[in-house]
Amino acid sequence: MKENTNSNIQKMTGRENLQSINPVTQTVIPQKFVVATSDEINSAAENANEAWKTYRKTSGKEKASFLSDIVLELESLGDTLVHKAMEESGLPEGRIRGELGRTCNQLLQFADLLKEGDWVDAIIDEALPHREPLPRADIRKMSVALGPVAVFTASNFPLAFSTAGGDTASALAAGCPVLVKAHPSHLGTNHLVAGAIIQAAQKNNLPKGVFASLNGGVETGQQLVGHPLIKAVGFTGSYTGGKALFDLANRRTTPIPVYAEMGSNNPIFILNRKLSENAETLASTIANSVNLGAGQFCTNPGILVLEKGKEADGFITALKIAFEKLSADTMLNEGIYKAYNRGKASCFDISGVTPMFEHKSSNDDWKAGPSFASVPASKFMDNVDLQEEVFGPFTLIVVCEDKPEMLQVASHLRGQLTATIMGNAQDLANALELSEILAQKAGRVIFNGVPTGVEVCPAMHHGGPFPASSNALFTSVGMDAIKRFVRPVSFQDMPDDLLPEELKQDNPLKILRTVNGMKTRE
Amino acid sequence: MKENTNSNIQKMTGRENLQSINPVTQTVIPQKFVVATSDEINSAAENANEAWKTYRKTSGKEKASFLSDIVLELESLGDTLVHKAMEESGLPEGRIRGELGRTCNQLLQFADLLKEGDWVDAIIDEALPHREPLPRADIRKMSVALGPVAVFTASNFPLAFSTAGGDTASALAAGCPVLVKAHPSHLGTNHLVAGAIIQAAQKNNLPKGVFASLNGGVETGQQLVGHPLIKAVGFTGSYTGGKALFDLANRRTTPIPVYAEMGSNNPIFILNRKLSENAETLASTIANSVNLGAGQFCTNPGILVLEKGKEADGFITALKIAFEKLSADTMLNEGIYKAYNRGKASCFDISGVTPMFEHKSSNDDWKAGPSFASVPASKFMDNVDLQEEVFGPFTLIVVCEDKPEMLQVASHLRGQLTATIMGNAQDLANALELSEILAQKAGRVIFNGVPTGVEVCPAMHHGGPFPASSNALFTSVGMDAIKRFVRPVSFQDMPDDLLPEELKQDNPLKILRTVNGMKTRE
Repeated sequence: MKENTNSNIQKMTGRENLQSINPVTQTVIPQKFVVATSDEINSAAENANEAWKTYRKTSGKEKASFLSDIVLELESLGDTLVHKAMEESGLPEGRIRGELGRTCNQLLQFADLLKEGDWVDAIIDEALPHREPLPRADIRKMSVALGPVAVFTASNFPLAFSTAGGDTASALAAGCPVLVKAHPSHLGTNHLVAGAIIQAAQKNNLPKGVFASLNGGVETGQQLVGHPLIKAVGFTGSYTGGKALFDLANRRTTPIPVYAEMGSNNPIFILNRKLSENAETLASTIANSVNLGAGQFCTNPGILVLEKGKEADGFITALKIAFEKLSADTMLNEGIYKAYNRGKASCFDISGVTPMFEHKSSNDDWKAGPSFASVPASKFMDNVDLQEEVFGPFTLIVVCEDKPEMLQVASHLRGQLTATIMGNAQDLANALELSEILAQKAGRVIFNGVPTGVEVCPAMHHGGPFPASSNALFTSVGMDAIKRFVRPVSFQDMPDDLLPEELKQDNPLKILRTVNGMKTRE
Repeated sequence: MKENTNSNIQKMTGRENLQSINPVTQTVIPQKFVVATSDEINSAAENANEAWKTYRKTSGKEKASFLSDIVLELESLGDTLVHKAMEESGLPEGRIRGELGRTCNQLLQFADLLKEGDWVDAIIDEALPHREPLPRADIRKMSVALGPVAVFTASNFPLAFSTAGGDTASALAAGCPVLVKAHPSHLGTNHLVAGAIIQAAQKNNLPKGVFASLNGGVETGQQLVGHPLIKAVGFTGSYTGGKALFDLANRRTTPIPVYAEMGSNNPIFILNRKLSENAETLASTIANSVNLGAGQFCTNPGILVLEKGKEADGFITALKIAFEKLSADTMLNEGIYKAYNRGKASCFDISGVTPMFEHKSSNDDWKAGPSFASVPASKFMDNVDLQEEVFGPFTLIVVCEDKPEMLQVASHLRGQLTATIMGNAQDLANALELSEILAQKAGRVIFNGVPTGVEVCPAMHHGGPFPASSNALFTSVGMDAIKRFVRPVSFQDMPDDLLPEELKQDNPLKILRTVNGMKTRE
C-alpha cells in the first residue's frame, strides 16, 4: 500500500517513503508515505501564500464554521482514528480518546472565540479635529494574520499537539494558512487528521492552500522554516529540535518568530509539614504523575526539592514503595526510549547523584522503567547538567540542608514551564518568597497539585522563560495562543468603506472595542 | 569640566572620556563624560537585577507617582534641558520644546495606565470542583515584568525616544529597571534627563538600581545586551545597529527579545485624481514632510509611487518648485550627514535612477540638501538596493506604467513602518486591493496624510514587518509598548494571601478582569 499523503499538493513525485513503527510490537506498519520533494514543499508554501490572500479576510463566522467542521470530520473518523493513533503511539485507548476530546474541545473553543470576535483587540481613537496645537487623526488598530505558518507536530501528543492540535487551531483561527510537518512516528494518524481538515476546508469553500501536511525528515522541516513565504513557526518537542529551528529562523534574511515549546524539569518543592502529614498519599500522587504516559509529558515533574530530615526520609521511603507499584509503559518510539535510558544513565553518573530506585526493565521492548535518584542541593547547584530534561518517568530528588538553601535552589533553576509548591496551610503562610522566585522562573506556578494536566482555558499559560520555551511572552495552550500568529496594524483616517468590519464606525460585528479609552460594543 | 555621569554607579574608574559635538558650529562641547568600564556595566546590571526584586512588586500607584515625578523633574530643568538638547542636536527650539512635551505626555499617559491598572490583562478561571470527568483547578493569569531592560537611545529624538523616552517609560511602567546606553551625540542631554529620573526614583524611595545610564560606544552596548541579567532590549536607530543587537541577543545562551525600530521608506502612493486636483498643495505638503527636521524621522516618506502621465508630470514639476523653496537644515551629527550624502549618491548611481532635484549645499557645514530622484517602477522592482533607507530629506519617485504595476510595486515592498495612500473619494473607492496589500507590508496605513507625526495613543502602532522593526508584533509608541516588557504567568490554586493584588478574589484594585469569560471589575 502506497499513498500520496502530502495532502493538498497536486503531484507527488517523491521516490522516498516513510513508514511508522508500532512501538508496542516494534514492527513496521505497512502503510507507506511519500516524502515531499523540495519542489513540493515550495508549491505548498506558494499555495498557502495564495490562500492567505483570501483566508486572512475570511470572516470569524466562516473560520468558526471551518474549525467546527474539522471537529465533525474528526468525530466521523471515530475508531479508525483512535486505533491508528494507538497503533502508532503505543498510548492506551483511554488516553487517546481523552486526547481526541481535548483536540476537538480546543478547536471548538477557538470557534467560539471567532464567533464572538473580540479577540482582534480593536482600539479606536477618533479624530480630534479641534485639538490644539495639532488636530488628532482618526486612528484604528486591530490584529491581522501574519501569513502562512509552519507547524511541527509533537511526538507525545499525536492529536492534541499535532496535525489539528493547538498550534494548527490557533493559527487557522488567526487567519493563517498552515503547513504541517508530520511527525515520522505518527504518519498514519497525521494522514487521517490532515484529510479531515482538508475535507472541512473544502466543505467551507476555502482556498485549497489553507492547509497542507508534508511528510519528511529534518531537511523538510528546515526547508519549511527557511522558506520566504513562511511567516511563523509553531513547535512542540525537544530543546535540540526547537533551538535549531529558532536559530534557523533568526538567520533568515527576514527573521520570523518561532514559538518552540521545548524542555522543562517542572520542579515540585515539597515543604516539611506537608511531607510529614501525607507522606504516603503524596508519594503515590507524585509517583503517578512522574509515570503518567511513561513520563512523556512536557510538564512531567523531573525534580523534587525537599528539606533534609526525618520527614524527607519518610517521604523517600514512601516514594520507593510507590515506584515499586508502577508499571513500565511502552515509550513513543525507539529514539525516545534510547534517549531516556541514556539521560538516566548520564544523570546517575554525575558526582553526588545517588540512584534510589530503578524499575527492572527488559531489553527486548521499548518500555521505560520508572526510576528516581537523589542529589544534595549543593551538588545540584554546582552542575547545570542536572537540569537537562530526562524525558520519561524519571525524577531527581534535590535534598536541601535548610529552607534558605531551598530558596537558593529555586534561584538556580533555569526557565521552566511549571513550578509547584506543595505545603499545608502553615507551610504556605511562609512560602511567599519561594513563590515569588518561582514566578520568575516558570510560566505557571501550581499549589498542591501535580503539573501534568494542562487545562485549556483563557487563564492558562503554557510556556515559560528560556529554555522552557523560545518565547516566554506567548502561550501554546489556551485562547491566547492565537496572539502568536497576528500582528497589530493601525489605520489612520481610512475611509469607512475600506476599513475591515471589525473597525467600521457602526461596529457591524458588535464586538467589544476600546473606543476613545472606553470598552464598548457600540 | 569632567563629570561622573554613569549615573547611579558608585565609583567611576574609567579613564576614557566622551564629548558631544555641536552640529551647528561643529565644535566640541567642553563637558566630558566618563565611559563606563566593563566592571561598572556589570555592577549596573547587578544593581538593576537587585532593584527588580522589589520594583517588580511596586504597586501601580507607586510606579505612577515615579513617572509623574520624572515629569516634574524634567519640567523643573526647563530651559537648561531645552538649550542643552538644542546645542547637541542642532534641532530648533520649537521642535525640542514640542519633543519635551511629548516626552512628558508619554510618561503621564503611562502613569494613568498604571493608576487604572487594567493593563496587566488579569484573567481568572475559577475552579470547577464538580466538573466531569475531571475537576478544573482555579487558574489566574496576569502579566509580570521581564526583568532589567537595556534601552538604546535614538539620535533623532534626544528626548522622546531617548533617556526618558517611550522605551524607558514603558519598561519602567511594566516594572522593569532600565539601563540606558546614552547616545554619543547627546551625552549632556542624557546626563540631565538621567539625573531627573534618578531624582524622581529617590523621591519615591525606589531601589537605587531602578535606573542608570551608561556612557560608551559599541562595546558598551554589546556588553549590556550580552549580560545574563538583562532580559530585554529597546532600540531605535539604524538597521545595521538594530540587526547587530538582534543577532547578538539571539546568540546568547539564553536569548532575549530585542525590540528594534529600524529603517523604513514609508512609501506614499498618490492616485491620479488626487494628483490632478491638488498637485501644488500636495507637492508642498509632501516636500515639507520630506524635509521636516532635515528628513531625520523614522517615518520620513522616502518613496513616492505615481502612475505616469500628465498628472504625474504636473506633480513632479510642482514638487521641484516646492523643493526649491526648502532650506537645508543641519543634520544631527557628522556620521548621519555623511551617510545621507553617501546614500543619496549611491541611489543616483543605480541604473534607471534620474536625479530630479538636488539642493545646492556647501561642504563646510553638516546641512542636508533636500533632493529627489525618479525611477521607472520596473527598475525599482529589479533592484532591492533602491529600498535602502536614505536617512535624510530625500525621496525617490517610482513611476508606474499603470495601476496594475502600482499594485506590483506595493507587493515588492519590504516591511515598512507606514504606507500611505493619497486619493480623492473616487480614487479611494477603487483602492481596496492597494490598501490590503499595504496593510500586509506596513504597521500603519495612512490616508491623505503624511506619515511624519506619530500620535501617542492607544490605537497607535509604531513598528512593522522586518526590516522596519525586529518584531512586528509590538509597538514602540503608545500604551501597548508596555507589552514588550512583560510575560504572562498563571497561578494555579494559589492561596489568596499569596496572590498578587491584581488576582486576589475580592479584586482590591478594582481593575477590569476577565472572570470566567466575562469582563468585570467585581
